[in-house]
Amino acid sequence: MSTVEKYIRSIPDFPEQGIIFRDITTVTQDPEGLQLAIKSMEDKIKDKDFDVIVGLEARGFMFGTPIAFDMKKAFVPIRKKGKLPWKTISESYDLEYGSAEIEIHTDAIKEGQKVVIVDDLIATGGTVKAAINLIERLGGEVVSCLFLTELAGLNGRKALEGYNVESVVVYEGK
Amino acid sequence: MSTVEKYIRSIPDFPEQGIIFRDITTVTQDPEGLQLAIKSMEDKIKDKDFDVIVGLEARGFMFGTPIAFDMKKAFVPIRKKGKLPWKTISESYDLEYGSAEIEIHTDAIKEGQKVVIVDDLIATGGTVKAAINLIERLGGEVVSCLFLTELAGLNGRKALEGYNVESVVVYEGK
Repeated sequence: MSTVEKYIRSIPDFPEQGIIFRDITTVTQDPEGLQLAIKSMEDKIKDKDFDVIVGLEARGFMFGTPIAFDMKKAFVPIRKKGKLPWKTISESYDLEYGSAEIEIHTDAIKEGQKVVIVDDLIATGGTVKAAINLIERLGGEVVSCLFLTELAGLNGRKALEGYNVESVVVYEGK
Repeated sequence: MSTVEKYIRSIPDFPEQGIIFRDITTVTQDPEGLQLAIKSMEDKIKDKDFDVIVGLEARGFMFGTPIAFDMKKAFVPIRKKGKLPWKTISESYDLEYGSAEIEIHTDAIKEGQKVVIVDDLIATGGTVKAAINLIERLGGEVVSCLFLTELAGLNGRKALEGYNVESVVVYEGK
């Protein structure tokens, strides 16, 4: 068991029957858990050359901004539709039932900037693929997709084939 | 003009006619803007004795977690209703039309812990007052409410009377 893993709370049947939800609030609400999570994530990208951390709303903000601040990089949020106040582009992605949209400000990434995407979790990879599309449409290059946890049984790595994927805690199931 | 202020983008008529929206994404998407914002906020609480940063969803996460990480404190999210996976308590607050609810995990704050609430903006103070109620119901003590920006014309300080309120950039209007 990774040392971060012991801070993660597993909650059966949330948000629905049969799903084990990996709750990361028990990581951040412990000062040592927060230090360990951020340092472990940073360790995965320490040899990467990059300019910007992109965090995915909302839990991605909780890990993306401390990494950006500590490594002296820029932080850019990708948000759910209608939340960003300036000019945006959007991408939709499939949910179990229906679809949803995420957006980025058009001036958030400059042509040629190297980007690391950060979120708390990689599951099917659908949201992350939509985020990659947004970043590439603005001329950015995604050098890594970095997660605190990974649900390996949902094959997110397959959906992100061709991209570097890093995660700190890997769960074999779904 | 404070040095952070020059990184903030003012957007007229968002989210509605007559409102000037203060966009903080232009702060965080500049590496120097992010350093300056976090250091300026930390400076306001450097003499406070506290254990936990509580961040309000979602922009509060972008400022609260780097401060918690850098100052080696705990970080606890307060989220909109239905987003937290474990046992919660909730408080409602008034919106211009109708009301909304925010929640906190019941084990997020321990009896007697000293708390700093962080958000990007204080406007009327309604959400912050609801957050204070949640923290106090769990036995926490709010030692400061810390914001990057303040809309002084909306009298948020009045709504938070009796509590320490700190902000880095103050706009006189609404």
